[in-house]
Parts: sequence; C-alpha cells; structure tokens
Amino acid sequence: MVTTVPGPKSQELIGRLGYIQNTMATQFFVDYKNSHGNYIRDVDGNNILDLFNQISSVSLGYNHPRFAETVQNPENLHQFINRPALGFFPGEDWVDRLENSLLSVAPKGLNRVVTMACGSCSNENAFKSVFMAYKRYLRGGTDYTEEEKRTCVMNVAPGAPPLSILSFQNGLHGRTMACSSATHTKWPYKMDFPHMDWPTADWPELKYPLEEFVDENRAEEDRCLEKVNSLMEEFKSKDEDVAAIIAEPIQSEGGDHYSTPYFFQGLQKLCKKHHSYFIVDEVQTGGGSTGMMWYHESFDLPQPPDIVVFSKKAITGGFYFTDELMPREGGRVFNTWMGDPSKVLLMETMVNVIKEENLLNNCKVTGEYLGKGMHQLEMKFPDQINKVRGPGVFKAVDVKTPEHRDKIMRQLRDRGVLVGGCGDRTIRLRPSLILQEHHADIFLDIFEGVLTDNQ
Amino acid sequence: MVTTVPGPKSQELIGRLGYIQNTMATQFFVDYKNSHGNYIRDVDGNNILDLFNQISSVSLGYNHPRFAETVQNPENLHQFINRPALGFFPGEDWVDRLENSLLSVAPKGLNRVVTMACGSCSNENAFKSVFMAYKRYLRGGTDYTEEEKRTCVMNVAPGAPPLSILSFQNGLHGRTMACSSATHTKWPYKMDFPHMDWPTADWPELKYPLEEFVDENRAEEDRCLEKVNSLMEEFKSKDEDVAAIIAEPIQSEGGDHYSTPYFFQGLQKLCKKHHSYFIVDEVQTGGGSTGMMWYHESFDLPQPPDIVVFSKKAITGGFYFTDELMPREGGRVFNTWMGDPSKVLLMETMVNVIKEENLLNNCKVTGEYLGKGMHQLEMKFPDQINKVRGPGVFKAVDVKTPEHRDKIMRQLRDRGVLVGGCGDRTIRLRPSLILQEHHADIFLDIFEGVLTDNQ
Repeated sequence: MVTTVPGPKSQELIGRLGYIQNTMATQFFVDYKNSHGNYIRDVDGNNILDLFNQISSVSLGYNHPRFAETVQNPENLHQFINRPALGFFPGEDWVDRLENSLLSVAPKGLNRVVTMACGSCSNENAFKSVFMAYKRYLRGGTDYTEEEKRTCVMNVAPGAPPLSILSFQNGLHGRTMACSSATHTKWPYKMDFPHMDWPTADWPELKYPLEEFVDENRAEEDRCLEKVNSLMEEFKSKDEDVAAIIAEPIQSEGGDHYSTPYFFQGLQKLCKKHHSYFIVDEVQTGGGSTGMMWYHESFDLPQPPDIVVFSKKAITGGFYFTDELMPREGGRVFNTWMGDPSKVLLMETMVNVIKEENLLNNCKVTGEYLGKGMHQLEMKFPDQINKVRGPGVFKAVDVKTPEHRDKIMRQLRDRGVLVGGCGDRTIRLRPSLILQEHHADIFLDIFEGVLTDNQ
Repeated sequence: MVTTVPGPKSQELIGRLGYIQNTMATQFFVDYKNSHGNYIRDVDGNNILDLFNQISSVSLGYNHPRFAETVQNPENLHQFINRPALGFFPGEDWVDRLENSLLSVAPKGLNRVVTMACGSCSNENAFKSVFMAYKRYLRGGTDYTEEEKRTCVMNVAPGAPPLSILSFQNGLHGRTMACSSATHTKWPYKMDFPHMDWPTADWPELKYPLEEFVDENRAEEDRCLEKVNSLMEEFKSKDEDVAAIIAEPIQSEGGDHYSTPYFFQGLQKLCKKHHSYFIVDEVQTGGGSTGMMWYHESFDLPQPPDIVVFSKKAITGGFYFTDELMPREGGRVFNTWMGDPSKVLLMETMVNVIKEENLLNNCKVTGEYLGKGMHQLEMKFPDQINKVRGPGVFKAVDVKTPEHRDKIMRQLRDRGVLVGGCGDRTIRLRPSLILQEHHADIFLDIFEGVLTDNQ
C-alpha cells in the first residue's frame, strides 16, 4: 500500500465527479487496466486484494486472458458493435449462444431462459411472468374481457389486479419499484418512495453453528413457515392473492442469513398449497463461489423452483423458468434490448473456464481453508467477531457492533484488503472463483493484525 | 430479396428458440456480421433497408468502422472485460468519459448526469429522484423521523408515501412496474400486472397539418392542460401529490403523436405552480434523428426540464438532472452496475462521428427530401395513407386501418424495407443518422409499389 484509501488521486477524481453526480458512496477510483486477477489497483497505485469484487459480480478476477481473447477475436467483433432488439431480431448464433452458456449450467429441471440487462429488470419480469400464470389459472381458460383490456391500460382492476408477491424481512431483490417493494433491508434504499403494500414475512433467526441448534432452529423455521401461510391466507381473503414467494437462498445484502433446506422445502410446499409460484433469487448466490453454480440446489427440493433469477457473476441478467411460466402471447416479457449478446458471449467464456479449470471445486477447497482460518480467528477474538459462516468462498463473519464493523473494514482496506459489509454488523467476503490459499493467507494475516490492534 | 421474410433459415431458428423462450414477437434472425450501414441482412441472405433500427436504437448503422476501431483499440480492451460497480468503484477515466460523451451533448441548462443500464431503469430512478426532492420540499429541512425509517422498509406510510407521477394516455415509459404505471398504450403491455393507480391525463388530439389548424389545436391543448391541472389538484386533495409529470416530446410507441411547444411550456408552468417536477422522456426522440440531439429543445422552454431521460441511440441508459434533483445521501439512486463504461465509450465514439460528419444536419436534409416524397405519396394515395409527419428522418404516416397497416408492413418487408408500427395504424420510420437520399428513394419506390398494388 502506497497511501490510505481513498488516496489523493482518488479524492481529486471524487471531487470532479461530484460536479456531475452524487459521490457519497464512491470508495475509490480504479486503474482497471492494471488490475489483475484477485487484485484491484486504485489510481494511487495501491494493489488491493479484492474480496468484494464489484458487489460480488466479478467471477474470474480482473482482466482474465480468456475474456481478452473473446473480445479480441475478430469473429466476435460484431457482437460488441451491434446491439440487437433481441425480442424482434436475434442474431444468427443466438440459440447456440444460449445453449452453450446459460443452458449448459441451468439449474436441474429448468430448460427455459430469458435474458435481461440487470438483476432488477430480471426480477421485475419474473414477477410479470408469475402474475400472468396466476391469472391464467384463475381464469381457467376463458379469454380476457373487453373490460380487462380497457382497465389494465388505466392501471385499475380487473385488468390491473391487486396481486402480490410475498417477500422476507431483510431480503433484497433490486431497486426498481416492484423489486423494491419486495426489499426490506435499509431505509436509505426505500425512504420517500411509494411502494406496493405487499406481505412481508419473518426470515428465520437461526442460531449458529447450525449443527448445534437443530431443534431450536427447526422450531424457528416452523414459526416462520406458519407466518408465511397465514399471510398468504390473509392476502387471499382481501383479494390480493400472493402470486409468488420470492426468496434468496442466502439473504446476502441483508446480512448473510441462512436457513436450512427444510425451510425452502416448506416454502415450496406452501406455494403448491396456494397455487402460487416459487421464485428463487440467485443474483448474488449464483455463479459458483458457494462451490455450486446455484446454491438452491443444496436444498434438495422435490421439484425445481418455478423461476431462478440471475445477474452479477452471470454477466447477463435474466431468469430460468418452467413451461408453466411461459407467456402465452408475444411481447409480454419484453423491452427494447432484452439483455445483450456480448454479455452472453462473455458468460459463455466464463462457463468454459469454470468447467475446464474445475473452479467450483476450487471454491470448495479454498473455501474450506479460508473458513478454517476464520474459525481460528473467531476463537482467538471472541469479543470482536463471531458466527463465521458460508459455503465455498462465500463467507461472512459478524462483528460486535456496526461501528466496529465499519472501522475494521476501513482498516482492512488501508492495509490492502477490500471486503463488503452487509446487514448491520456483518462482513461479507465475495471472492472471485480463482481465489487461492495464498490469497486466503494474506487476508487472514491482515485480518488478524487488525483484530489484534483493536484488542 | 431471396425469400419472403421470415425465410426458411429464420423459421428453423425460431423453432429452436421456441424451446427456450416465447418467440411470438420474433420477426427474423439476423446475420449481424454481414449487415452494413442502413442494411440489415437476415440469415436467409436477404439484404433489407432498415428504417426501424432495433426499435430506434441504432445510430450509425450496422458495423460502423469507428465502433470497430473503438472495440479493437488495445487501450480500450479492459473496458469490455471489467465491469465496475460504478457507484462504488469507477474507473480512472470515468469523469473524462462522461464529459466527452453525455455531457458534451447535454441539453441546454443541464450539467449533471447519471448512467443506468436501460430506459426502464432510467425512468425508475428518475422517479426516485423526484420523490426524494418532493418530500424534501414538504419536510422543509427537518430530518427523517424514526417512524419514517421504520415504515418505509415495510412499504407503508409515512416512510413510503403515496406520491404519484402524472402521465398521458398513449404514453410509454418502460415496462418495469413504476414505468409501466406511467404507460398507457396497449393492453398486452399491462394485462394482469398490478400497477400504481396514478393519474393519467389526455394527450392533445391535434389536427394535421398543424399549421392549418392553429386555433383548434390551441383549444385542444388548453383543454388537456386544464385536465392536467385538475388531476394535480385532485390527487393533492387525496394526499397522493403528483411529484412529477412525465411526457415524451413526441409520443412514439403510442402512435407518433405531436404537441406544440405551447403544450410543453404549459406543462412546465403547471409543474412550477404545484411544486412538481418535469421529466422529459427522450428515450426514443433523443440521439439526433429529429435533426436535434434532444427534441424538447425545439419547445423553447423558459427553463430546462428537471430531468431528461435517454437510452436507445444513446447506447447507455441514464438521465440528466438539475442541482435540485441531486440526491442528498449516497446509494439512493443506485444499483450494482449503474450502467456500463463500455457503452459510454461507444457513445463517445458516436458523438464524435455525429459532430465530425455533421449528422444532425444530414438528418434535416435527408428528412426534408424523405418528407417531400412521402407527402407526394399521401396526395397520390389519399384513400390509404395520411398525416405524413415528423422532424428530420423521424417520420410517420397513418394508414386507413390497423389491418391495412399490418399488411403494408409485411409487404414492405418482403420487398426489402423494414419499418416499425406504432399506435393502432401508424407506420414509423426510425432511420439511422446516416440515411442518404438514395436510401429514401429506395423506400419511396417500394412504398409506392406496395400502395399501387393495394389500390
């Protein structure tokens, strides 16, 4: 490290950017050209071990040579220049691209997929898909009425029905209006914005380590499942039927909160019972860092979820869906671009590298090593940190207070390690899939140093 | 033309894609590699004059050499590989990029800008900006209450207040929930989706040619302005204050409906009167094809709009905004990526080409030639088409019935010209900025042939 972060050059650029837009969240400016692998280099020349990776969206580290090949291959040039309106005019190779990228790593039982630009657009369109399917079920085969056609355009029932999406306390699903209505993390994400008054259920507050509190945690999950059921009944009774439940396999932004497979199995059962749909939001958990492409596959659901949403590490947004969720008319899950073939092309490269280099296994192996080291620190500094948790390299640890968490994060950054915060007092690690044990050692050494200095 | 459209290869690919997603809107598959300038080449080898340009989103035609240079320049490679979370970690050159691209063509009086991935995300965040500013005005300097912080996370008042956005019949602003609530075009865009019950005002039904019906049109615009005013009063009286009016300078998807500058001046006055904000949605009209970068600048507004939204031809989504609309906290207008520097880089190239080749003037000159030819056809075939209209190459013409419009569009396509439909019975031309008179001639010849055959 050459300077503290943000250094003088970053500060100067933050000042300039401040004339253009709000910069209060800007951490530092980056020299992307000279960032490599797990190291992000800031404009002041600091090389920082990046365990946050652009809010968990970098898979293969910075400037991976295979991505460079993909961009520089003259055969691909046209993909980066010409952006199609994919819903009208897909490119010659579009079906192959989808098959070789997204479909080649599809969650078990799901073989349909649509692309979108980002996670929020993906969830918005996932919601539209379930609203259509739910109403189709209610109609039982009859066609839209003229009254429905007229009223929907004016935003009122019966064409625009008061259907709802059930979400969870501390869940995050995006920042556009429908996504935000299913998001319940921090007030700065929501204050002063109108929202849909949709049902919000409790997420189980589990005791850690999970294997030591099996009975207590089962009782807590049963309590939450009962709450979900009663909310679904309540909203149905006021004609605001829950068309879908949306949940993250691991509540990430909300604080890396876990549940057991039993809870997700229970949610799926409740969806079946109420003829609702089950949307699993893998925007942050998907893409491999847990040691699996899709973390919900660890839940042993008897049937696939109805929709699995992705973005971030997938490079493209979008969602997988079942036959039942297929829109029955064209142009309903739609916008101008509907994703971007150049991103899907890069995703194909990523998928190939993950397979060739067995990176899911790398995440398991490095993750186990990293977790062991973090547990040792947890035992050494029980007054400062606890609840080390997480599959693969998708790790988290809680800090005693929010203020101490923020201080530790700043100290880590000034000593050359970038991590993310989540929830009130959690540190989340979102390493790339190419993290090695020697990177884990660097983090553990610096973390230990920070914790020691704070004793 | 080698085949009718879609030809056999397109049909085969549509069949394959149908196993993956809904294809009912798919027109044909494209050989993007071999599409050039104003010609799109389909996979069956048909070279089609493209006057629709991916729903108005292609500016410089297909495979423009300057875009190729930009992608192939080794200095830019890292921009296409590493996608930053721009709200936290912008790249070294980000301020320069914004200054050289978006800010170098900013609408008069607006010098702040934020990028987003697409038009819908842009409008969603524009709405959030006005909700914040409107509530800030109501609070008069007091801080958020604890009750507001608690309730907003649960989607209820006072933290999540029932503010509204006023929009217009036949307006389109996107397909995510808030955007869709301000959209009133066709029922397939809206059916079965819950929406906010926000006010919808009439758009003036003007008589064409505008210069012949000045008095009638003024009366109609006064009627609509009065309606807007009464809706704003009505919604304020039920505590659902209109935080902003959103309007397109030309209602595009809704049917290429025009207003006069007087109408937009009146809307701005009403915003000032009610302390609301004025959002001008230039997603389709912006980018040069009208002969101006931003069509609202033809309205001689006494002050700039509070927000001007862009996407499509701008290659990146986003919006310009005034100082007053600047969020006062970080992370409020925010998502993981917040746009894409590689798209802004391409936009910079586009802006440079537009300036160097004086393409705004080209749109005016070619547009005048094209308009003259269309008017001649209108006079020759008054039973089939009327209301030829539009600035620059941003042209439209109405057809006697929706069915006849659809038939003409198919015939044009089979003879080698791709156009777009909008409204019930309008054909819209959305040429690139590099359209020349000889392209106009090709269109006019083929259009005349189709109209003749339908006599």
